[in-house]
Amino acid sequence: MESEREQESISKTADLTELVIAALSHLASSRLATEHQPFVPSEHSPSDLRRELGIALAEHGSSLEELVHKLERILAATPSSSSRRFFNQLFGGRDPAGLLAEMLTPLANSSMYTYKVAGPAVLIEREVIARALQKLGYLEGEGMFSPGGSLSNLTAMLIARNEKLGDVRETGLEGRGQRLTVYLSDQGHYSIRKSAGMLGLGRNNVRLVPTDANGSMDRAAARHLIERDRRGGATPFMLVATTGTTVLGAFDPITELADLAREFDMWLHVDGAFGGSVMLCDEYRHLIEGAGRSDSFTWNAHKMMGVPLSCSMLLVSRRGLLRKHLDEPAEYLFQSDDTDLDPGRRSIQCGRRNDALKLWAAWQLHGDAGFARRIERQFAVARRFTSMIENDPELILAKPPQSINVCFRVKGKSSRDICTLLDRTGRLKIGFGTVDGRDVIRMVCVNPDVAERDLRTVLEEIKSAAAELPPTSDAPAG
Amino acid sequence: MESEREQESISKTADLTELVIAALSHLASSRLATEHQPFVPSEHSPSDLRRELGIALAEHGSSLEELVHKLERILAATPSSSSRRFFNQLFGGRDPAGLLAEMLTPLANSSMYTYKVAGPAVLIEREVIARALQKLGYLEGEGMFSPGGSLSNLTAMLIARNEKLGDVRETGLEGRGQRLTVYLSDQGHYSIRKSAGMLGLGRNNVRLVPTDANGSMDRAAARHLIERDRRGGATPFMLVATTGTTVLGAFDPITELADLAREFDMWLHVDGAFGGSVMLCDEYRHLIEGAGRSDSFTWNAHKMMGVPLSCSMLLVSRRGLLRKHLDEPAEYLFQSDDTDLDPGRRSIQCGRRNDALKLWAAWQLHGDAGFARRIERQFAVARRFTSMIENDPELILAKPPQSINVCFRVKGKSSRDICTLLDRTGRLKIGFGTVDGRDVIRMVCVNPDVAERDLRTVLEEIKSAAAELPPTSDAPAG
Repeated sequence: MESEREQESISKTADLTELVIAALSHLASSRLATEHQPFVPSEHSPSDLRRELGIALAEHGSSLEELVHKLERILAATPSSSSRRFFNQLFGGRDPAGLLAEMLTPLANSSMYTYKVAGPAVLIEREVIARALQKLGYLEGEGMFSPGGSLSNLTAMLIARNEKLGDVRETGLEGRGQRLTVYLSDQGHYSIRKSAGMLGLGRNNVRLVPTDANGSMDRAAARHLIERDRRGGATPFMLVATTGTTVLGAFDPITELADLAREFDMWLHVDGAFGGSVMLCDEYRHLIEGAGRSDSFTWNAHKMMGVPLSCSMLLVSRRGLLRKHLDEPAEYLFQSDDTDLDPGRRSIQCGRRNDALKLWAAWQLHGDAGFARRIERQFAVARRFTSMIENDPELILAKPPQSINVCFRVKGKSSRDICTLLDRTGRLKIGFGTVDGRDVIRMVCVNPDVAERDLRTVLEEIKSAAAELPPTSDAPAG
Repeated sequence: MESEREQESISKTADLTELVIAALSHLASSRLATEHQPFVPSEHSPSDLRRELGIALAEHGSSLEELVHKLERILAATPSSSSRRFFNQLFGGRDPAGLLAEMLTPLANSSMYTYKVAGPAVLIEREVIARALQKLGYLEGEGMFSPGGSLSNLTAMLIARNEKLGDVRETGLEGRGQRLTVYLSDQGHYSIRKSAGMLGLGRNNVRLVPTDANGSMDRAAARHLIERDRRGGATPFMLVATTGTTVLGAFDPITELADLAREFDMWLHVDGAFGGSVMLCDEYRHLIEGAGRSDSFTWNAHKMMGVPLSCSMLLVSRRGLLRKHLDEPAEYLFQSDDTDLDPGRRSIQCGRRNDALKLWAAWQLHGDAGFARRIERQFAVARRFTSMIENDPELILAKPPQSINVCFRVKGKSSRDICTLLDRTGRLKIGFGTVDGRDVIRMVCVNPDVAERDLRTVLEEIKSAAAELPPTSDAPAG
């Protein structure tokens, strides 16, 4: 190791980093200029695409110029979730402040376990969590970021399980003679079943409660299942209310479910990954009325709030719960006296990227007021789209929307085939789902920047794809 | 919703996004210009810092200019893990290609569950996983990204548990009459105990196996514990080899542990989160000899390979295991026929950010050969630093390093107090650990760009801090 050679190596790296920033501007401009065009159609097989884009890795490296050129082509071939032809998921669009902060995040590359390493990034994370707790109505709560809604839900189930079973964290689930059961609507997210499997509770012990005509959990049906399980010797321990279901965007009645949970001494978790954002908007907060009475709440700000993936938090109603169930001693890591400042002690993760900065930046730019307006606009877009469906004789609305998902179908045509054709020809990214036994097209109005003409484009593309397809029976499947 | 107003709103957002790219260049330059200076000392209380940096959120938003100004001050106050005064963690430095790709990631904002949504990003992820499998020697393996080493280890334990217990995923752990036990060296990572708690196995069922004089797991001691547990009626099911322990950077003998695992019909997991990268370097691959005989392997490319946080994968030796234990039906989401192209079916996550692009970009730029050289340089830096310690009469080397962590102490001074003083005065980020009952300073030579003069600076700062502190006893702690 010679110091001259080393100095050379250092300046080379520094130069390279400056070049990277220049390359970034070029690539970003190139991407932004094209992303509202129709998507690149999936006409190539994945193996052809891999070859054409030069994805293969090799023994010897390339120049930065070659890499930038490859990245440009790859970006051009990657579907843009910010496009106004992207309605396939519960996220879409792009918040400029969120984007800026997310692009800065790897520059600092803070790992969010200790204040010693992350400094003000810890304070920023605390700020957004505190603001969310306040909006939600958890007056004595606390929260923590996790890498997605599935893992936030898992964390909630973990805490609920441990609170019910005492020393299970130390001694395990075996030999307790207690079978724990969980209740979730049949429109709820699959992560609850998945988490039950992971946590050792068993997926068979998750009950899917029927939903009413609006797609919300039927409280009487939930009570019936809980009572039946109790008679059968099980221990019902957790009720999951979904606010914003994946297909219909339906909201479960939290206040009623809170009464039920109290009656049966169950943990009430709210999966607000999608719809929980209405906590930020006076006009729609009533959809989660009673949320302050729940025990835990999952919120993904990368969905309705439009910040980049991923930005999920688990909020719990009582301070101290996270540390109680997640802290693990690691002296080589946690070296400060003020353990409250080391978020690693309240997380399911150890090393952890900063997912809070992007939400903080968007919240700074827009304020509470701007965040509320964003949600109002999403609902306005959904209302407008709904009335376009209702006024079109070729289209049938599946159900009056409770929030911003609009489910509908084209008379006598397969929703599944329409969506697949639109995807394969690069015209539109939109998904299908099942409502009351029928396949439907699911339009998610989560991007507040779409205009009337974008909505018209969506319907034109859908009807034109439908016209290319053979007629199918209009009867419900199965 | 009026179309003219909407069009206005769209162009405003587009303009804003262009502004964001300009702001980013400014902020990045500002950051890069200052980050090799000594750190901002932690002289302010966190609440003062919060106020001075204007972190509070408010009812009304700010202008983009104000936000950029705040971000600039926040970045300046955030410790840089790329600084040549940062040796506090198992990551450090900055790879330019990794940085570029990570900054592009939120522009595409792909969620990595389906090919429909993520397109070529899925192919890129497959490429880096395939290359890692090949380097590791898993000829029939598969792999998946997870949001960090802790969760990769958890996923390995989940699969091992489920493989041992058959239908546990469906029916849960209760009522089986089997108590599963896990074996890990006493220098292994805390996530194994934490995961045992989460998965319902119980933290008490994790055995910490004593280590030998080098800090590697003592195989005879492991056998003794396994046999004792079997006699006691437990089911030993998992042996964890650590390659690159957190404090000493020690490597467990995989080949010997593979024999032991086979003898007792146990799952052999390798926690290579830190040291697993030696798979990429002919000169040091012998440290993980036998890895191809293990059942699963955790590898974090955000540590030795220097790509931004987080970049962790779990590799398993047999194709089909991930899907078998992680797939959960979700028809609204997984809509393609070729399910092998939907990585969401093999992940603990649902929505998932693209953590693969940054590793792919770095690998493209450097090639296998460049990656190997990076590791050689880290070892060379560690050797040079070790000899500087050995040649300094004031300093005592704790143990000859097996890899790139160099643990030492200053004669008659508290390692803990030295590190704390260096942190509080902004001179150096470096951590302490415990070796053979004594506190030591742990220098992690993971940044290949540090030069001889940086190493001298480290020792000068440490000795100058030591000189400011009172003498302590040199005897090991109680």
